[in-house]
Amino acid sequence: MKKLINAVGDVVPEMLEGLVAGAPGLVLLEGQTVVLRRDHARLGGRVALVSGGGAGHEPAHGGYVGPGMLTGAVVGDVFTSPSTDAVLAAVRAIAEGGSASGVLLVVKNYTGDRLNFGLAAELARAEGTDVEMVVVGDDVALAADGHHAGRRGLAGTVLVHKVAGAAAERGDDLAGVRALAQRVADDVRSMGVSLGACTVPAVGEPGFSLAEDEVEWGLGIHGEAGVERGAIASADDTAARLVGAVAEDAGLSDGDRVVLLVNDLGATPPSELDIVARGALAHLRERGVTVERMWVGRFLTALDMPGCSVSVLPVDDELLGLLDAPTETAAWPAPH
Amino acid sequence: MKKLINAVGDVVPEMLEGLVAGAPGLVLLEGQTVVLRRDHARLGGRVALVSGGGAGHEPAHGGYVGPGMLTGAVVGDVFTSPSTDAVLAAVRAIAEGGSASGVLLVVKNYTGDRLNFGLAAELARAEGTDVEMVVVGDDVALAADGHHAGRRGLAGTVLVHKVAGAAAERGDDLAGVRALAQRVADDVRSMGVSLGACTVPAVGEPGFSLAEDEVEWGLGIHGEAGVERGAIASADDTAARLVGAVAEDAGLSDGDRVVLLVNDLGATPPSELDIVARGALAHLRERGVTVERMWVGRFLTALDMPGCSVSVLPVDDELLGLLDAPTETAAWPAPH
Repeated sequence: MKKLINAVGDVVPEMLEGLVAGAPGLVLLEGQTVVLRRDHARLGGRVALVSGGGAGHEPAHGGYVGPGMLTGAVVGDVFTSPSTDAVLAAVRAIAEGGSASGVLLVVKNYTGDRLNFGLAAELARAEGTDVEMVVVGDDVALAADGHHAGRRGLAGTVLVHKVAGAAAERGDDLAGVRALAQRVADDVRSMGVSLGACTVPAVGEPGFSLAEDEVEWGLGIHGEAGVERGAIASADDTAARLVGAVAEDAGLSDGDRVVLLVNDLGATPPSELDIVARGALAHLRERGVTVERMWVGRFLTALDMPGCSVSVLPVDDELLGLLDAPTETAAWPAPH
Repeated sequence: MKKLINAVGDVVPEMLEGLVAGAPGLVLLEGQTVVLRRDHARLGGRVALVSGGGAGHEPAHGGYVGPGMLTGAVVGDVFTSPSTDAVLAAVRAIAEGGSASGVLLVVKNYTGDRLNFGLAAELARAEGTDVEMVVVGDDVALAADGHHAGRRGLAGTVLVHKVAGAAAERGDDLAGVRALAQRVADDVRSMGVSLGACTVPAVGEPGFSLAEDEVEWGLGIHGEAGVERGAIASADDTAARLVGAVAEDAGLSDGDRVVLLVNDLGATPPSELDIVARGALAHLRERGVTVERMWVGRFLTALDMPGCSVSVLPVDDELLGLLDAPTETAAWPAPH
């Protein structure tokens, strides 16, 4: 294992210290691996948004904390759900500030996250805080009705943050923000491909191995293998397979309007991402689908995994307006 | 070689097509690998800024084209200077628009780039266009007076783009923009470390090999080995060595004010970059240096190389104001 880290056990607290040091608008919650907006007690009656999950998905979710997106991010160990206590501490810190009109939790669909965020929500409600929760499961590689814990949450989660964050910022109430977040969670779909495994620091070696001409299709974001191993294809064919699966699952057809997120899983250079983005765009256009916006970069990763995912979200003018609304975060791109 | 590309010869044009497809403010110059602001003929008398060089450094330089930074980026083959003709075509396209008060070329200090950008500047001047050129050589791994072509241009170049772009945007004349660009080029210093080689698509295999516990110190951005091979150190020690070399070279001392750029060379996950950033910040603080701003991410890469560089620029209030000025580009981060 070759990584720019100090002690393996310090990876999460130290990366958060680094993140916060470079972002004057952020603070760490004392004694917790929780990133908060510095002004989390001055939200002016807006709804607060809290997300999080295991570490290893950077810039998710700490990089999305700031005006227009998240109020806080609760971070567990690498690929491990944060504790109920950590989530509750984040919600309490915001509730104690007294300036939030309720808290929405945005959770990726993994058993540990559902459990710990869900329990924290119950406990916070018992303390009198208005809390709602939306679960994101955007991975089309798993059939929606298969024998598993449900579709996994992937990079589409970031679009839930963006839309719900903009709705909270403009002053929507908790029911309204929740409804928009749920709509995006219901409609966004993603699929990924990996060119190699990632290495969890505490494990020290890659989670699987691939031959020089092999890729894993339909993988998650925790270093596990995908649903199918196959031969590496051209960027255009790769993009077509990924975005084609998403488009089929979503039932996209001629005249539909969508946004497209092309996400680096960790170690894919921007040049390759841009080539995949070009292919994904061409494929959607062939289907008669209008791509209203496209973002290409690192949004939700699996440590140092080479590969990418594509996420597609059908949109109307209201969603586009919320997606275009300004943010002040480390990781959501500036308008351009 | 395992890459998300189509034909090797199509990497550069296709990545630029992808970049431009996701950025409505950009266009490609017909028949050239040149990215321009769509409004390059409506600059309102402002100075135009053109940079570029070999491909493989994405998001540099196409990702910095937009209001507040570059007017255009001229892109060669991977790690190969663009031709004189390509640079001249970019300058001509801007000059023909008739709305620019001169063109400043920002060039990284490599023989091919100096030659091709320099010759294009001469030819454009002969055509009556006001052109100036600033060369950036920020790499402290090479002694300033050694037997080589001079210090190499590294990620510090992006800070030249940012400062000069903001000066152009506020309406400074060519001499003024040039002077600010030259000041940043003179003062910015960088040093990098690599944990492995990158793979040039047309070559198909890594440029060097390193043992599991080895790194290359003081490397450039073209896949070449560094000035010294050594054992991998902790992130804190790595950061201290990089930023220490930069601080010594710059003669930084107690009370100095700087900005810090921590740059991924291509395949380093954000978690590791944030840990290095934390260490670099701690080292500068120990020296009594005030870090006024810090940016952490992918700014100027060497394809898929794992590793990072740090760049330090001494600043005053004027430079800070220019660094804080808004931009609309794919790759410069939003304020946060």
